[in-house]
Formats: sequence, C-alpha cells, structure tokens
Amino acid sequence: MANQRVVVIGGGPAGLRAATTVAELGRPVVLVEQRGFLGGTPIAERYASMTPYLEDPEAALGAMASHLASLPDVEILLSSEVRSCSGDAPAFSLEVEVAGQSRSVEAGAIVLATGFQHFDPGRETQMYGYYEYPDVVALQDLESMLKDGNVVRPSNGEPPGRICFIQCVGSRDRQIGNEYCSKVCCGVASKEAIEVRQALPDSEVFIFYIDMRMYGYWESQIYWPAQEKHHVQYVKGIVSEVLPRDGRLLVRGEDTTMGRPMEIPMDLVVLSVGMEPSPGTRAMAKLLGVAQNKYGFVEAARPPLDTVGTNRPGIFAAGAALGPADLEDCASTGGLAGARAVASLATAAVTSG
Amino acid sequence: MANQRVVVIGGGPAGLRAATTVAELGRPVVLVEQRGFLGGTPIAERYASMTPYLEDPEAALGAMASHLASLPDVEILLSSEVRSCSGDAPAFSLEVEVAGQSRSVEAGAIVLATGFQHFDPGRETQMYGYYEYPDVVALQDLESMLKDGNVVRPSNGEPPGRICFIQCVGSRDRQIGNEYCSKVCCGVASKEAIEVRQALPDSEVFIFYIDMRMYGYWESQIYWPAQEKHHVQYVKGIVSEVLPRDGRLLVRGEDTTMGRPMEIPMDLVVLSVGMEPSPGTRAMAKLLGVAQNKYGFVEAARPPLDTVGTNRPGIFAAGAALGPADLEDCASTGGLAGARAVASLATAAVTSG
Repeated sequence: MANQRVVVIGGGPAGLRAATTVAELGRPVVLVEQRGFLGGTPIAERYASMTPYLEDPEAALGAMASHLASLPDVEILLSSEVRSCSGDAPAFSLEVEVAGQSRSVEAGAIVLATGFQHFDPGRETQMYGYYEYPDVVALQDLESMLKDGNVVRPSNGEPPGRICFIQCVGSRDRQIGNEYCSKVCCGVASKEAIEVRQALPDSEVFIFYIDMRMYGYWESQIYWPAQEKHHVQYVKGIVSEVLPRDGRLLVRGEDTTMGRPMEIPMDLVVLSVGMEPSPGTRAMAKLLGVAQNKYGFVEAARPPLDTVGTNRPGIFAAGAALGPADLEDCASTGGLAGARAVASLATAAVTSG
Repeated sequence: MANQRVVVIGGGPAGLRAATTVAELGRPVVLVEQRGFLGGTPIAERYASMTPYLEDPEAALGAMASHLASLPDVEILLSSEVRSCSGDAPAFSLEVEVAGQSRSVEAGAIVLATGFQHFDPGRETQMYGYYEYPDVVALQDLESMLKDGNVVRPSNGEPPGRICFIQCVGSRDRQIGNEYCSKVCCGVASKEAIEVRQALPDSEVFIFYIDMRMYGYWESQIYWPAQEKHHVQYVKGIVSEVLPRDGRLLVRGEDTTMGRPMEIPMDLVVLSVGMEPSPGTRAMAKLLGVAQNKYGFVEAARPPLDTVGTNRPGIFAAGAALGPADLEDCASTGGLAGARAVASLATAAVTSG
C-alpha cells in the first residue's frame, strides 16, 4: 500500500495552492517551508500589492494559509528544510530538519514549489549602478517603499520628481545567459508606476522598454490605464548606462522609436529585474534528482499539455520553480500539481493492490 | 449525500485535462462535447503543430483522449449539448441532448471548458481584405495549409515568394471593443513563420507587430531562432491597409522604428487574429448563470490566487473560456478546475453528512 501523504516543498503561492488542493481532496499533506512564515516571495520581499488587482499580499496569502491550516491532516513545518530524500514513488523517505531537529517524513508523492529569486543586478549589469548609487533600486525595493507609503530617494530621503523603470534587467539577455523573458516585469513595473503616480501626483514616471509584454487582460487592466489615466510615459528604448550627474542620475541610451540618442536626468531609477531560480529550487531539484533546464529551473517533462510532471514519477513541480510565472500561473500549476500528486497515490494503490 | 459526478462541458485541451483529473481522482465524470470528436479547436481548425514544441496536435490530444477513455467511470458524450441546468451545488440537474436524444444527467459539480473562437476578420477590420482578396488568410488557414504540406497563394496555387503576418487583428483594439491582448498570436505567428521558412526556403517572411509578446521561454524557444536561424524579419509597424496591385497585395502602413511610411508588395498576407469567446462559452455561461466579463469570457471570481472559481459555487471554468490562454494555461487551469470540482463534492458531503 502506497503511503498516502503528500509532501509539498515551499509555502509561497504555488505551494499553498498545491497543499490546499491535496488537503481538500482528503489526503494528508506536510508543507515544508524554509522561512519562518508562509506566503513566499511576496511576503518576504514586502510587496505592496499583487499584480494586477492590487490586493494586499499579506491579507490574500494569509487567508490562504489560514484556510490551509484549518483543514484536516495538514502539517505545516516552518523554518524547515529537506535534507535528504531516498526511495521512489510511491514510497519516498525524506529527512527534514525542523528548527534544528532532524525528522523523518514518509511520502507517497512530492510537489516542488520552491520558487524564484529576483535577478541580482550587481553581477553582470554594473552599468546600471545598483550597488554604486543609492538612488538606483530594484522592483522589489520600490514595492517595499510603496508598502511603507514612503517613496523617496534613498540618498536624501526626498520624494523623487522624476522616476524611470528600466525593463529587462537580467532577462532577454544572452550575455548573462538569461535568454528567456521573465514574463511579469512589464506588468509589475507598470503597476508600480501607477502606484508611484498616485502617491506622488507631481512626479513624472517613465518606463524604458524593448517590448511591453502586457499579455491577456493586463493590456486593458494595467497598460491602458497606466498611459491614459495615470500618464505613465512609455519610451521604447535601450538604456546603456546610468551615471551620477549634479546630484541626480543621468540615464543614457537610445530612443529606438525616435531613432536618436537620449540623455535624461532622473531622481530615482528602478531596475525591472527578472526571475531566476531560487537557491531552494536549485538545491531541491538536485537533491530530488529532478531534471533542470540550462537556467536551473525545473524542467517540465511533457509540456505543453502536462505542465507539472517532471522526469521522476511521483514528483511534480509548480509555480516559478518551473520558470517565469505570474500569480495566476502559480495558482493553476499549484492546483494541477496537487491533484496529480494525489492521483499518483491512487494509481499506485491500484497497481500495488 | 451530494451527487459524486462531475460534468465537464467541452472536450478541448482544458476540458480533457479537467476530465482526466476528475477521473484520476476516482470520481465519475461525464464529458459533454458539442463536436463529433475530442481535442477542441486545434483539431477542428486543423492546426499543423502546437506552439512551442511543434508536436502533432492529433497525436498529443488523441493520446490524452485515449487515456481519459481508458479510465473507470468516464463517459464521453460527443455531438452533445447541454440544453438546461437546474439546481445548485452539489445537486445540479442537466438536460443534455445527445445525438438528437434528450438525456438527464445529475452532477455534483460542473467544469466549463468551452473555449474560444478565432476573431472574424471580416467584421470590423475590412481594411485587410480577408473576405475580398483570396491571398489574405488568417493564422488558422495557414495552419491548415502547413498541415497539408501545401503553402500556396489561394488565388493561383503557386507558392508565395513573400509572405507577411499582421499582428493584433482583433486584439488590442478599442474600436472593436477587444482591448485585451490575445496572448498567443505572437508565438503562434512566429512558429508558423518558422514552418513557412522551412517549407519554402526561398521565401521571405515578415512579421508586422506592435510589441512582440514572447513571454517566458517563448523568447528563447521561438523568437531567437525565428530571427537567427530562420531569418524571419520582424518589423515594428502598423499596417493600415492591404490593396491589390499587379496581381500581388500591397501592404501599406508605417514602420514605426524607422519612422516612415512603408509600402511592400506581398504574395500572401496572414492575419494574426485574436481570441474571442466561442459561441459555446457565451451560451453555456448564460445557461449556467455564470458571470461573464464585458468581452463575453467567463469571469474568474477571485483571481489571481484562484483562477478557476466562478460566482456560482460548484461551477468552475478552465482554459480559453476564461480569456486568452495558451496550451499550458489550458492544462494548468483544467487541472485546478477538475481538482476543485472534486474537492467541492467532498466538502458538500461533509457539510450535508
């Protein structure tokens, strides 16, 4: 008889949805989360609001976590990490370190939902000066400022008059090896641009982009209102460097629509950093023996009609562990992964029964 | 005691995944499909291959359908339509017309997966001449030609020397009321462009676009190879009209990168038509009393963390019935919807027990 428990690794949006799905389907689930809290990157990085509907992530993800905790046979292990995994489907044996103590967990199936990390703009994109100039920040830094209701120039604590976003930092970039598009940055930057314009009505906000990837409803939910209602100024152009000049930042590059060089002084520069696999995604994929693509994300074995199966039976992946994903992708793949995990137990029971 | 059966309406990629999920979770499922076959629009419209991995849709969707049919307690009703629905969760009573005969089906939950239709480029986009000039075709027409290995100018049966795609036909267009981006057309057009270049190595292929929305891995899977390996020529520009000229088609518009008007003779013009709700989606949403957005797609009640719940308990939606969706979206939301449907039965059983 197969072990009927599912272990979900990662307690962000995808992991929460996966664990909730398992529990709602009546199977025991153990959620292993490395951090001391649930909710994942939106909570850890202090996002002000979620794209595109602007809900408070603490409220929305907190409600999901409370609902999960209220279901029968749910165990949530915080500050915990999977240290080893042996066996095969449907009989995996995991060793989990829970607050410094080692503990054995038997599982019939595993869902890997270990997410992404923001691209570090210090590494190979020094021309933007993220670690040199205090008024160059990243998307998640501005989220945090918006959350605190305190959008300022870090250098002097004054509200910025002119702000720009530079898109595709760490994405669509062959030189650094991230050829993929990170999918969400156009939407997230535009959402933040709207929030800045609301917080600082006298500010001017620019977005320098290659293509605005406002797919699906984001076009009408974010992109039209950003331009028409909030007067965010979109400039198709490539920024080649950011330099200090007279106490401000000079953004240099090419306006590709106008076909001419541009030099614009800014008070705050926001780097729209892309998604990379989190250290947890890299480590857990390796530990579980799950195939990764060349970027380090988990490789879906049979896309597009199966988005969550991996090369190992009984192990499924969800959310940004699989690559760039928006919150809706995380919810949907989380649900499919949870369901597939439960279904794999039933199949195993029939096969072995 | 709640009825334990789930009815899935629609047998395309999302409906197949939803029904498979229900069946794999051990609950009885009835799949109601209006057409005489399963697989949905990729089969009905004779797609040559699926984006981005180029599998044969008949093989891939056929395998899903066979797997579904092999599972216990699965009933597939072809050439069938839901005529009425009464009751509430978890006790819906549906009347289904099966090959002309009326039949009652009791269900505990319903998944709506009735999909999309291609925008009709005759209605408000006459400037492209879809119904006037035989050599103006739509994305799905070219799919069909590619499937037959016969890419020709319909006017004379000769292979085209110069081909262009016009993006955003029926999408991102406020005048016709479709403000949303249809999400998949950039990827699908680029995939077809690659296939044309492979089929006709002497051809020149152009894509006229506003923004190339090659999100996520499509950037490296399709967009880079289209340009570098297959020499597809991307032109950022707006096409204002297509006119007959000396037996060819004159494409007139503005090259927005070069900032100048353009007039290019083409042998074949492909309109990258967007997604609209299918007649089935409009009709079933109305019949089931499920909220629709202003475009007629089913409105998800609690996005982004719940992508498939509707305003009616026990009724879930999946795939392109919810709006523009790629195949991965269809698979993921199909799985979540199937799981939620099954979970809603368990909850109902507990509540009523």
